[in-house]
Amino acid sequence: MSGAALLDRVRVVLCDTTHPGNIGAAARALKTMGLERLYLVAPRYFPDPEADARASNARDLLESAQVCTSLAQALDGTVFAAALTARSRELGQPTLAPREAAPLLLAEAAAGDVALVFGRESSGLTREQVNLCQRIVHIPTNPDYSSLNLAAAVQIMTYELRMAAGIGTLPAPEVHEPASFEEVEAFHLHLEQVMRETGFLDPRKPRRLTQRMRRLFTRARLEKEEVSLLRGLLKAMQAQRETAPAAGVGRATVD
Amino acid sequence: MSGAALLDRVRVVLCDTTHPGNIGAAARALKTMGLERLYLVAPRYFPDPEADARASNARDLLESAQVCTSLAQALDGTVFAAALTARSRELGQPTLAPREAAPLLLAEAAAGDVALVFGRESSGLTREQVNLCQRIVHIPTNPDYSSLNLAAAVQIMTYELRMAAGIGTLPAPEVHEPASFEEVEAFHLHLEQVMRETGFLDPRKPRRLTQRMRRLFTRARLEKEEVSLLRGLLKAMQAQRETAPAAGVGRATVD
Repeated sequence: MSGAALLDRVRVVLCDTTHPGNIGAAARALKTMGLERLYLVAPRYFPDPEADARASNARDLLESAQVCTSLAQALDGTVFAAALTARSRELGQPTLAPREAAPLLLAEAAAGDVALVFGRESSGLTREQVNLCQRIVHIPTNPDYSSLNLAAAVQIMTYELRMAAGIGTLPAPEVHEPASFEEVEAFHLHLEQVMRETGFLDPRKPRRLTQRMRRLFTRARLEKEEVSLLRGLLKAMQAQRETAPAAGVGRATVD
Repeated sequence: MSGAALLDRVRVVLCDTTHPGNIGAAARALKTMGLERLYLVAPRYFPDPEADARASNARDLLESAQVCTSLAQALDGTVFAAALTARSRELGQPTLAPREAAPLLLAEAAAGDVALVFGRESSGLTREQVNLCQRIVHIPTNPDYSSLNLAAAVQIMTYELRMAAGIGTLPAPEVHEPASFEEVEAFHLHLEQVMRETGFLDPRKPRRLTQRMRRLFTRARLEKEEVSLLRGLLKAMQAQRETAPAAGVGRATVD
């Protein structure tokens, strides 16, 4: 099963949400990470213009959201559920960090629908709600201020799910052809030549400066185009020097 | 240097923010993850009641926020900066995923202040702003909907920083003393005895059912208290049976 197909089996269940803005922001969080299935258990206000506003272009997820009267109803048909809670565990289910919970959820999703369950903003999930879930997930926070916003918690978990699904890839980089070994060597010879011509290179210890220059440009991993640019600059400097030699060029000091 | 001390060196820089609510939500995101240093480059509205409201109890971070007129000013005194952008790289800095960028930022923080730089909500960072940073960070998103909210992006990055700092620990679990080997074995013998007495155990193939029961309780890793509870239940069943033997108890079928 593909990572995207597994994400399709994840229900994000928000219980007893009091602020409709959080429902909208959660919908947006789901959609940015490629999830689609939002379940709302007894939301105080829904639908609501505030939810629509915060959902931005993820309003389709609000329209397809399942509104339930109880968590049991939202979990109907699932094979696995994990409860988000900020409190230390009370009832003995194993407690997982988000990075452990995400791959576990996707592994369980191979067998059917799974759920991530979030509680009310002010008070979190009730003991009875947590008891309907097989695992507890705890997002690590600052012990002096653990007041994670509901939609922010949803964003972290859906981000971890996308990473666990193996589809958290970076955009293809623009193609920059690397310079070949010979091109880089020719550039270094050219640079050394210019440094000699200008008197910048101390003839008593020429290697110190050239080594430093090599170190810099090796680290940068020159591209073909960059070598052309740099050699063009060196040529321009040589041409200028031929027409009007500069006086009083300082000597390099490398320590 | 401790993880918390490294987090203290991370500046979160929000450039050209148009919605003050996002500034407040970003402050809250920082504080939940143990970061404190918010820099605001040319915010459209700040201070603002909307920022205060969304900051919840992280308002102290808004009060200590540095308001700057340019990104260069916000980066003054830093040794390293990473730019968040949703676009593919344009200018050749290496592009990192959040999980790669977070440990790198903390490693660089050993040498001094570092910065995570976020652009305007609608348009992101300008080319000139990106050029002031050594690395680009790209948060993987759904290619069909990559519209991550600014504060949500800040939350993901600060979460990754906390994880990278090695202080993303789970709360100490309540102490549940595990049952000893002998206690578990005594329970299994007791259970088998009850299963025989009730006729639930098929005497022709007794091992099938006992193996199944062993598998279940081994997986659950019984605690001392749970063994006591279970044996209490078995005793109660035995006592009831002695006073009023149940008729017609079905035999177990295990396939």
